[in-house]
Amino acid sequence: MDPSGRRPVLDKGWVQLEAYMGGDAAVIRGARICYQSTARTPDADERLIRRLMASEPKHNTVFEHAVFRFGIKCPLFVARQWMRHRIASYNERSLRYCIADREYYVPEGDLSQKDAYIEHMEASFDLYEQLIEAGWKRERARGVLGTAVYTEFIWTVNAWSLMNWLQKRLDPGAQWEHGQYAKAILEIFSEIMPVTASAFKESVLKL
Amino acid sequence: MDPSGRRPVLDKGWVQLEAYMGGDAAVIRGARICYQSTARTPDADERLIRRLMASEPKHNTVFEHAVFRFGIKCPLFVARQWMRHRIASYNERSLRYCIADREYYVPEGDLSQKDAYIEHMEASFDLYEQLIEAGWKRERARGVLGTAVYTEFIWTVNAWSLMNWLQKRLDPGAQWEHGQYAKAILEIFSEIMPVTASAFKESVLKL
Amino acid sequence: MDPSGRRPVLDKGWVQLEAYMGGDAAVIRGARICYQSTARTPDADERLIRRLMASEPKHNTVFEHAVFRFGIKCPLFVARQWMRHRIASYNERSLRYCIADREYYVPEGDLSQKDAYIEHMEASFDLYEQLIEAGWKRERARGVLGTAVYTEFIWTVNAWSLMNWLQKRLDPGAQWEHGQYAKAILEIFSEIMPVTASAFKESVLKL
Amino acid sequence: MDPSGRRPVLDKGWVQLEAYMGGDAAVIRGARICYQSTARTPDADERLIRRLMASEPKHNTVFEHAVFRFGIKCPLFVARQWMRHRIASYNERSLRYCIADREYYVPEGDLSQKDAYIEHMEASFDLYEQLIEAGWKRERARGVLGTAVYTEFIWTVNAWSLMNWLQKRLDPGAQWEHGQYAKAILEIFSEIMPVTASAFKESVLKL
Repeated sequence: MDPSGRRPVLDKGWVQLEAYMGGDAAVIRGARICYQSTARTPDADERLIRRLMASEPKHNTVFEHAVFRFGIKCPLFVARQWMRHRIASYNERSLRYCIADREYYVPEGDLSQKDAYIEHMEASFDLYEQLIEAGWKRERARGVLGTAVYTEFIWTVNAWSLMNWLQKRLDPGAQWEHGQYAKAILEIFSEIMPVTASAFKESVLKL
Repeated sequence: MDPSGRRPVLDKGWVQLEAYMGGDAAVIRGARICYQSTARTPDADERLIRRLMASEPKHNTVFEHAVFRFGIKCPLFVARQWMRHRIASYNERSLRYCIADREYYVPEGDLSQKDAYIEHMEASFDLYEQLIEAGWKRERARGVLGTAVYTEFIWTVNAWSLMNWLQKRLDPGAQWEHGQYAKAILEIFSEIMPVTASAFKESVLKL
Repeated sequence: MDPSGRRPVLDKGWVQLEAYMGGDAAVIRGARICYQSTARTPDADERLIRRLMASEPKHNTVFEHAVFRFGIKCPLFVARQWMRHRIASYNERSLRYCIADREYYVPEGDLSQKDAYIEHMEASFDLYEQLIEAGWKRERARGVLGTAVYTEFIWTVNAWSLMNWLQKRLDPGAQWEHGQYAKAILEIFSEIMPVTASAFKESVLKL
Repeated sequence: MDPSGRRPVLDKGWVQLEAYMGGDAAVIRGARICYQSTARTPDADERLIRRLMASEPKHNTVFEHAVFRFGIKCPLFVARQWMRHRIASYNERSLRYCIADREYYVPEGDLSQKDAYIEHMEASFDLYEQLIEAGWKRERARGVLGTAVYTEFIWTVNAWSLMNWLQKRLDPGAQWEHGQYAKAILEIFSEIMPVTASAFKESVLKL
């Protein structure tokens, strides 16, 4: 994590916790109001969260009172998958209004054709700038920029929806690049909601 | 507001702000990331919020990054309407697990038949207790309790969905009892998000 | 099922399929567009649905293109639980505008205090009518009617959200009365989407 | 509309109605169950829909019982905006599994730099194919393809959410290319739900 609180992901991306509300205590609040109960022993709350997480059918609502806001910088092809998760709120930098920064994802390692890839991405930014110069609308000129280009957005999401995203994006079948973001956010989640995250890893991720 | 932070509503109900995240600053964060802009003058942020609120079509997403959690005590017939608002999270005291408290709404004022009403509500609690005594399940015995009975729940909701609820429940066509809750929550909303609430009153409520 | 297509549930309730869209074919449509694939053998579609249902993490979106509308008559205490399921659309008979019918749930069997229960429910309707006679608003007078009273609503829901409801309401921990509605709707679901319902019973309900 | 039922949009895109449920009658069903009322005159239903559409606050739920499924082919930059509408279900051709077709949007008219644009888009497909040839994963190789590339998806959406999308995308402030899709879908909507669409044009679009 750099001084600004951004955790680097991929070659130029990052995630950053901007705000949160509730934490593990909000899960307990949600559960205990149903039963009008209180914890009788110090570890009763922790055991309650573990039981709620492990139960089938799921008790999703109690996890919805904990909420997070993250700032994210990632390639467009990752953002496209991300924003398919509908139980959340997003605002993204718009290339209808802003000029795209010359920043795109370059995969690590010794890849064949990597130079051709970089050359092409640079050429696409050159053309993008020419088109705007020539009077094309920004919203049209962006059509030449590949989905490897970086974008930025904020994401407000409750803990239940967050865990659903984590489960899907940490799965071995998910795209590796997206999984790197999920790993970074799982770390933050574990710091802010240690009991819930621990129960989630055990009961859902089976780590 | 009493010392515990509960604002009384109706004869035995209340609302209480339990937590919040974001406030007016979250709206600005959501709006400014789209344009990658910053405020140039001290009142630029306020003017931006007013413009977003007044615009048609609506810019709902920027208002979704501000989130609230309220505790609420209200009659069942109010809670039933309330929980029809789906973009929110609820957990409610369950009469499957808890024994109902002998608390029910009595309308103010000099109403004909008020004594008969009170007598009947008391009789319903007497019967409820007898049924449980006789071995009925709580979840069945509750069937004799009228919807004037009080319930308690927590409500996590973003500012956009909150304003939609406020607009509907402050409308003259809404049930008066529900409107009393909306008035109390509008006050809290105005304290926590003064700029957004002021713009909402002007552009949407037309106050 | 009676001639009108209503399946009786409990002593006076029913469920009825009013409309549907898509069925098993919609699940296939949703899945095959992702892969731009077509079925090579007659049973390929069925195997695909079974694989989608069994996979973890879940592929929920493909099941969302199949949609149902049901008409339902049930006790208020069942309707209250039902409408907590938020990914669906509801419209319910309103006791703000309509006069309540004198219909309430009476549990089957030889229950102690059953006469007292019936007597009380009748008395509550007597009082309800007196209050309205005396000039009380309907929306207030309803406060004396217990949640054993029947209500009617329509429910539009996609197959994914329907299965989530079924899983929760067919669970042994759910209220028995609600479970009776889930059983009736599982039958309808199995008629309209036989492959999906069969896979659901196997992979989720573990029947 | 061509023989397959596809309405052309832009240079290579289209929209197609695949299925629908309910129509204007579903709106009436939703509204009349609230009041337990029936139409007394032939045009009572039409007047009811117009009143519901014009009222403030909005009566959204009654419009949610009418549901549509569309097939859509559009540029990625249009699809990205489209899928930000969360009250709907989507499944899209995946470039993780499929090879992209060499199809991209070329704006109409006499645009400066149009040849350079076309040349670049062709070059990006050439490189895309080379990268895959060289062993890059499809999900990574797609990073060089611009958002002018066409994609295909299906969209299941209720009439309320559809009208919200139409209002936003028919607005003069919306991107012109997206608006062309909204125009085509407004035509289909008007054929399937003539009364609702007419009321929508009058009260919301102010046409």
